[in-house]
Amino acid sequence: MKVGDKHYRSIWFDEPSGQVQIIEQRWLPHEFRVVDLKTRDDFVVAIRDMWVRGAPLIGATAAYGVAVQMALDPSDKSLAETWDILHETRPTAINLRWALDEMNALLKPLPKGERAAAAMKRAHEIADEDVECNRMIGVHGLEIIREIASRKKPGEVVNILTHCNAGWLATVDWGTATSPMYHAVQDGIPIHVWVDETRPRNQGALLTAWEMNSHGIPHHLIVDNAGGHLMQHGQVDLVIVGTDRTTAHGDVCNKIGTYLKALAARDNNVPFYVALPSPTIDWTVKDGVAEIPIEERTDTEVTHVQGKLADGTVTEVQISPDGTPGGNPAFDVTPRRLVTGLITERGVCEASPEGLAALFPDRVRK
Amino acid sequence: MKVGDKHYRSIWFDEPSGQVQIIEQRWLPHEFRVVDLKTRDDFVVAIRDMWVRGAPLIGATAAYGVAVQMALDPSDKSLAETWDILHETRPTAINLRWALDEMNALLKPLPKGERAAAAMKRAHEIADEDVECNRMIGVHGLEIIREIASRKKPGEVVNILTHCNAGWLATVDWGTATSPMYHAVQDGIPIHVWVDETRPRNQGALLTAWEMNSHGIPHHLIVDNAGGHLMQHGQVDLVIVGTDRTTAHGDVCNKIGTYLKALAARDNNVPFYVALPSPTIDWTVKDGVAEIPIEERTDTEVTHVQGKLADGTVTEVQISPDGTPGGNPAFDVTPRRLVTGLITERGVCEASPEGLAALFPDRVRK
Repeated sequence: MKVGDKHYRSIWFDEPSGQVQIIEQRWLPHEFRVVDLKTRDDFVVAIRDMWVRGAPLIGATAAYGVAVQMALDPSDKSLAETWDILHETRPTAINLRWALDEMNALLKPLPKGERAAAAMKRAHEIADEDVECNRMIGVHGLEIIREIASRKKPGEVVNILTHCNAGWLATVDWGTATSPMYHAVQDGIPIHVWVDETRPRNQGALLTAWEMNSHGIPHHLIVDNAGGHLMQHGQVDLVIVGTDRTTAHGDVCNKIGTYLKALAARDNNVPFYVALPSPTIDWTVKDGVAEIPIEERTDTEVTHVQGKLADGTVTEVQISPDGTPGGNPAFDVTPRRLVTGLITERGVCEASPEGLAALFPDRVRK
Repeated sequence: MKVGDKHYRSIWFDEPSGQVQIIEQRWLPHEFRVVDLKTRDDFVVAIRDMWVRGAPLIGATAAYGVAVQMALDPSDKSLAETWDILHETRPTAINLRWALDEMNALLKPLPKGERAAAAMKRAHEIADEDVECNRMIGVHGLEIIREIASRKKPGEVVNILTHCNAGWLATVDWGTATSPMYHAVQDGIPIHVWVDETRPRNQGALLTAWEMNSHGIPHHLIVDNAGGHLMQHGQVDLVIVGTDRTTAHGDVCNKIGTYLKALAARDNNVPFYVALPSPTIDWTVKDGVAEIPIEERTDTEVTHVQGKLADGTVTEVQISPDGTPGGNPAFDVTPRRLVTGLITERGVCEASPEGLAALFPDRVRK
């Protein structure tokens, strides 16, 4: 999407320089840095140290990493090592493994001389497939926003609340939860976005607010505590969030705090939608609260906050007393009974086994 | 309550030095500073610049301020000016006005020579009355904790979640929401407290965590997003929060985010109690959501966070992109249907017109 007047993806092949480039996300929102990834080691650092994050973007980055390495050394040994080395960077990331397997399956049978070109072509395709998937989420989600706008006076703003960053920075372009918003703007529907800061890692404040700001979408940053009050007072027309994992029954595992917003939406009759590319559906899991183990992350994320000092230096401050430990569950599960609908690349469905099965008859497990 | 081995109030008269002393709360939790308030100007700064905060504590501080001024100048002019000057520090604080009126009514009829002693005596009484009120909240709230403990295995911990700081630092001693916790500890019931950090001002992280740490109560600091997940997984036995204003029908206006925790408590059958001294009941208001105007505070509280750098310096960092505005409603209203009970100095009652009227037949408006 746009940064000022220019359109960016989060990863791309720069024709003039012949390099793969990314937005180095660790410096956002305080600095916008574009960096070249020239060697396999560059890709390792970029994925491992979270210069890029978000499942789809990690997958695409790994694919480009394989392509860059094939241009440097297309041998079988190089190919096998690259799978191991890149997989090691974020071993639990499903999309990373999927992209590496995809590249391996394509390249292994090919003669060495053809590997570099084929790898780059497939990396482009993987990136483009992600963009198309997210675009379709936007096309379907736009209908929901359009329907809400049609019940308002002409020109009246549609207020959308979102949590965390399910934005284009977490994908190659469009984002998931944000794709309907970008499509609404493109369609001329006036929207305003309430951006949850999303403690403890502040992805809302750091990334989603930056996206909105860069693309010129009216928005306000709010603390995670504020959404319920805004809904009580009619200031939210719609909630759209992303998800890290959706169960076959329609429960949604997403960033910690999502569940609280879903409760408030239900209590105030505000529609609560979850946007997801179908690969996030885990067809083996039914009851999300009972079955999904929740990662407990380091407590310094709770006791410390990163930000910019008055002189521009980006640093970290401790907000808690010395000696106070933090508890840090990273995700929570929103039961399907609180979800108005799931927005996928194939359309919008009810958050239920039947709803998902009807959209994905080819994937559901009987 | 205790800071290490020593018992403190948040304001007190120090016999050896003949001075009124306070804990200078702006430096908590990073530094524990006690300061003398020697002149009326000292009291003005202490209240206005929030060296002390919390309705009951502000009232007691104002009373001591009048007493100190009467020792310096007991004239009618001085008395009248003091009311104006101290009232101006936090003009919307109900307890401040109440304490100043109380002192005025007592002192005006007295000969000048008797004013200083009478004022100091009454200031002590106001402080002691607050302590006694909060102690009784603890005595009644303790029964709720004891009942939960009795259903557990011997020695099993009772997990209590609280939001913001309704602790002894907001009162003269004991606190309101914390008083049942301190009483439980005193009674030998093992408790553990989940402390919501309470963005945007982080009173949970800065003050409640410091209280728990100082008194030696097991606790974890959590982000405001985490409580719902903890309740889903049986890790919260009880929620106790304070309130800034309670309606005659039992709705509760408290720090932003309280409503979200009440929704999660209801969804998971966790008891949700609100502790309050009866002066916070506004007998003129019925429907809190419809009738109570919510203060919108400066957006820098949302875009910036205060904390301690690695070198010990306390400073502020900006977490948001330049150009992103913040929305900052400071309170929300929890409807009475989500409140299990109100813990007052006269006992525990249902959050309803009937419940409050039964406990306070002398105050209810017909």
